[in-house]
Amino acid sequence: MSRFQNLIEQHTATLQQAVNAIHTRDFYAHWPEAPSGKIYGENANADGQQRFQEQLNNPFTRLQQTGSSNHGEETSPYGFPLGITYPVADANTLVANAVAAQQQWRSFSAAERAAILIECLEKATPHFFEIAYATQHTTGQGFVMAFQASGPHSYDRALEAIATGYYALTSFDTERTWVKPMGKMEVTVNKKFYAVPKGVNVTVGCSTFPIWNSVPGMFASLITGNATIAKVHPKVVYPLAILVASMQQTLRELGVNPHIVQLGVPSPEVPLTVELINHADVKTVDYTGSSAFGTQIEQLCAAQGKVCFTEKAGVNCMIVESTNNIDAVLDNMAFSVVLYSGQMCTAPQNFFIPKAGVKEGEVVVPFDEVVARFIGKIDAIVNNEKMGPSTLGAIQNTGTIDRVAKANTLGLTVLRSSSTIAQPGFDAAQTSTPLVLQADANQQDIYEQEWFGPISFVVPVDSFEQAVEIVANTVKKHGALTTSCYTTDSAKQQHAEEALIYAGAPVAFNFTGPIWINQSSAFSDFHGAGANPAGNASFADLTFVTSRYNTIGVRSIG
Amino acid sequence: MSRFQNLIEQHTATLQQAVNAIHTRDFYAHWPEAPSGKIYGENANADGQQRFQEQLNNPFTRLQQTGSSNHGEETSPYGFPLGITYPVADANTLVANAVAAQQQWRSFSAAERAAILIECLEKATPHFFEIAYATQHTTGQGFVMAFQASGPHSYDRALEAIATGYYALTSFDTERTWVKPMGKMEVTVNKKFYAVPKGVNVTVGCSTFPIWNSVPGMFASLITGNATIAKVHPKVVYPLAILVASMQQTLRELGVNPHIVQLGVPSPEVPLTVELINHADVKTVDYTGSSAFGTQIEQLCAAQGKVCFTEKAGVNCMIVESTNNIDAVLDNMAFSVVLYSGQMCTAPQNFFIPKAGVKEGEVVVPFDEVVARFIGKIDAIVNNEKMGPSTLGAIQNTGTIDRVAKANTLGLTVLRSSSTIAQPGFDAAQTSTPLVLQADANQQDIYEQEWFGPISFVVPVDSFEQAVEIVANTVKKHGALTTSCYTTDSAKQQHAEEALIYAGAPVAFNFTGPIWINQSSAFSDFHGAGANPAGNASFADLTFVTSRYNTIGVRSIG
Repeated sequence: MSRFQNLIEQHTATLQQAVNAIHTRDFYAHWPEAPSGKIYGENANADGQQRFQEQLNNPFTRLQQTGSSNHGEETSPYGFPLGITYPVADANTLVANAVAAQQQWRSFSAAERAAILIECLEKATPHFFEIAYATQHTTGQGFVMAFQASGPHSYDRALEAIATGYYALTSFDTERTWVKPMGKMEVTVNKKFYAVPKGVNVTVGCSTFPIWNSVPGMFASLITGNATIAKVHPKVVYPLAILVASMQQTLRELGVNPHIVQLGVPSPEVPLTVELINHADVKTVDYTGSSAFGTQIEQLCAAQGKVCFTEKAGVNCMIVESTNNIDAVLDNMAFSVVLYSGQMCTAPQNFFIPKAGVKEGEVVVPFDEVVARFIGKIDAIVNNEKMGPSTLGAIQNTGTIDRVAKANTLGLTVLRSSSTIAQPGFDAAQTSTPLVLQADANQQDIYEQEWFGPISFVVPVDSFEQAVEIVANTVKKHGALTTSCYTTDSAKQQHAEEALIYAGAPVAFNFTGPIWINQSSAFSDFHGAGANPAGNASFADLTFVTSRYNTIGVRSIG
Repeated sequence: MSRFQNLIEQHTATLQQAVNAIHTRDFYAHWPEAPSGKIYGENANADGQQRFQEQLNNPFTRLQQTGSSNHGEETSPYGFPLGITYPVADANTLVANAVAAQQQWRSFSAAERAAILIECLEKATPHFFEIAYATQHTTGQGFVMAFQASGPHSYDRALEAIATGYYALTSFDTERTWVKPMGKMEVTVNKKFYAVPKGVNVTVGCSTFPIWNSVPGMFASLITGNATIAKVHPKVVYPLAILVASMQQTLRELGVNPHIVQLGVPSPEVPLTVELINHADVKTVDYTGSSAFGTQIEQLCAAQGKVCFTEKAGVNCMIVESTNNIDAVLDNMAFSVVLYSGQMCTAPQNFFIPKAGVKEGEVVVPFDEVVARFIGKIDAIVNNEKMGPSTLGAIQNTGTIDRVAKANTLGLTVLRSSSTIAQPGFDAAQTSTPLVLQADANQQDIYEQEWFGPISFVVPVDSFEQAVEIVANTVKKHGALTTSCYTTDSAKQQHAEEALIYAGAPVAFNFTGPIWINQSSAFSDFHGAGANPAGNASFADLTFVTSRYNTIGVRSIG
């Protein structure tokens, strides 16, 4: 009997619910998304805030790993340095730790690994509020988004990867007495099948969703028997450091080598990413970030025959053709633009609107009126003192501020100017409200680039069909995480659906109310189609887990 | 209701049995392997032979595809030209046909595609005997092997790919009404999930197992909605031409565009392979063949971000340490060497035997005696008039004859000389009996190369552990399709099992009786570990099918 039998039994229901959810694609959340004291404890917020305050300007000492130096360069987008330092180790040290830890980890069964990993997540749940503050003050997200994205939504994505891996690993029986009838005799062979992990994983994280974008690759690697090194962005270390430190502590308490998961902290002297990827014992790589560096990493991996999953940049498009309620449509569109100042990989950038206007039931709302009301909706959110600052958040990277300035020099009609916005309590916050420009349909050289951040383009088109053609081409040439259409015409919807799906992007129709295309739900929505230039990863399809191991057989007679 | 409803119902039991078999890894064969008139019809052999004779020296006119020229260059290894010509089309034509056919094919459900593909196989079953003669006289296999390998065993591998693909495609529900509770309200989203095929597949076949090695990639591509082009070896066209022609005819009768499967016939003017792989609409590639060309193809695919599954060459090793019945061991080893003159990718090449001898129960059989009896067993099969010629078959490629000559010049001790052997009825047959050489353990530069064909090395070793270390290194450096050990010591077995499995090769222990490590059973044995330099393909694990499509979601409200 497994020495983890109690743990397996304790987490069986969670695992089974998660596996069931990935099959049905129904709504499922193991961790409620509300940052509520009723759910997470009345003192949870205050405790988290206190731990955050205590950590500021101090070394981060919770990891079960050492470094040859200490380094930290995080600054809150809300305008103050964090002053935290982390242990920095070189690639050889991290990989050697990982290889050593893997020897034990790969010998565990899928059920054992699933139980241990779920236990790690459960034990790390009390850190949600500290993680939220850490995320807010590294990424610039508003507090609620920071809580949801780095806490419950991330943990659910991690659980999804565990469940998908468990499902794949248990798809084939691991032992079989094989009996082949041969006329009057028969041959009996005892068979065993090992899921042999490919080897050490490196997950290269990003600066905007440091946990959400990293845990799928990390947990997909772990459930399939590999050790993982979470290489963080130098300016966004703290959130994932909390999770990794908690996991390492839980693992140590369980008698498992904690180095199956390590934090890879870069410094100016130890940039780490390329060194890790080129290490002979690193066999799989996950990457979220810019297209340029992502393409370089893909090529490094391809040349060495390594498995590489990427989520790079894309250009997300919306088409507005007809609706029964244009007010609800524009509310939804505006919120998608304002949310985290357009710094989500799923945020829409280009809005295609027929020159002849948008049909609302039997009425046609003229193009100019649609645009004016869209801008008005954005203004209403931005200028709402309660909602605006917390929805916009702050700008993570000064490059994004520069990009807004550059967009202003394109010579396009400015439909809405960008400005700063006050973040109460944070006078030095780096902010930028949405810039909305109008481009002609033939200015594809401009609007088919990714303008990451609070920059959008309204593009008047001759027809819905023209818009679909442009969007499908954008998807094929430049990639996309999301596409979206508003139409009440079922034939048009069917046409767009097939054109966009077979171009390689997911598509959302007629989103209104409290759901936005920026969102992607664990267990139900595959995040990243894996089928266009925005990346080959999909959280979490079967390939995302099965590419991390091989099934190898042992046959014996007697 | 599907217009293929009857077909789906007709083949449901076959599909379910196959899916069940891939789960349990138990023995399963949909097509009995015996070339028996009782199973396949009393006239089946005579009819097949007649069709073969009628096809000789005539154009092959059964395909539903045309060419810009006709070409054929097949010669039987048994010593006569086949004189058959095939339509040759260029890469652009073949890919354009495939793209056009895919539009319809991708719209079918997994159940529809599975039923149609099983119907294709069932309708092609009456061709088993003609396929056997075609295989014998292109590959040089003996008739019974040719029947089994290209007929029932191939069709079972095809069915396995269908079943694995069907299992993967049906792992996630394709439609869901998703309801997210949000306090007192809820959000409802209608979700659909498309399995979007990556695009046209090219399967590059080999000269020794032209159907068996090609159908897994072809059927894995087809079940996942892609069209496939089976690019054949210029000297081994006929066997797969029969299957593809039969499939095309069945598809046409079902109202399905037959160009979802096409034969790619090369000619000196149209070499085809690289042109096909470089075509923008070709998205996945399967390859079986030499390591040099395979590595070139892997690099071509990597540079273009295409999925590439390879089975290249490996160096298969056996270790003989102890047994309760050395006679049975040597019988088994000898047959593995003689079978198809070592022209199987799974055939053992290197035999590691302790200098101190092999333990048989309490007795130690000295090294020299083990070797002498091993050679004696080979001689007994080779010189058996009934068994020898049909087991050895003929040599497919004159390069293999040259390789035997080269091996003779290595300066190693010749334990058994190679010679020709008479193939009754075929005076001009190209044959070569096994050459067995003795090498020192430190002559790895010689015996760690692949010596494809009837060439083996006996290597005396100091210990079992030394042998395991050498074999594990061979697997890691040069790849292997199989490894094998004979030992009665359970601790030694456990040590070898872990060392070889984690090196990345399957391992067989103590094979005696009518089962040989050369064999790999559909539905139970994963062929190709996918984890060592011998290739990244595994027939048929989940990655082998899931890498051929992406799951992309449609969300809609209202």
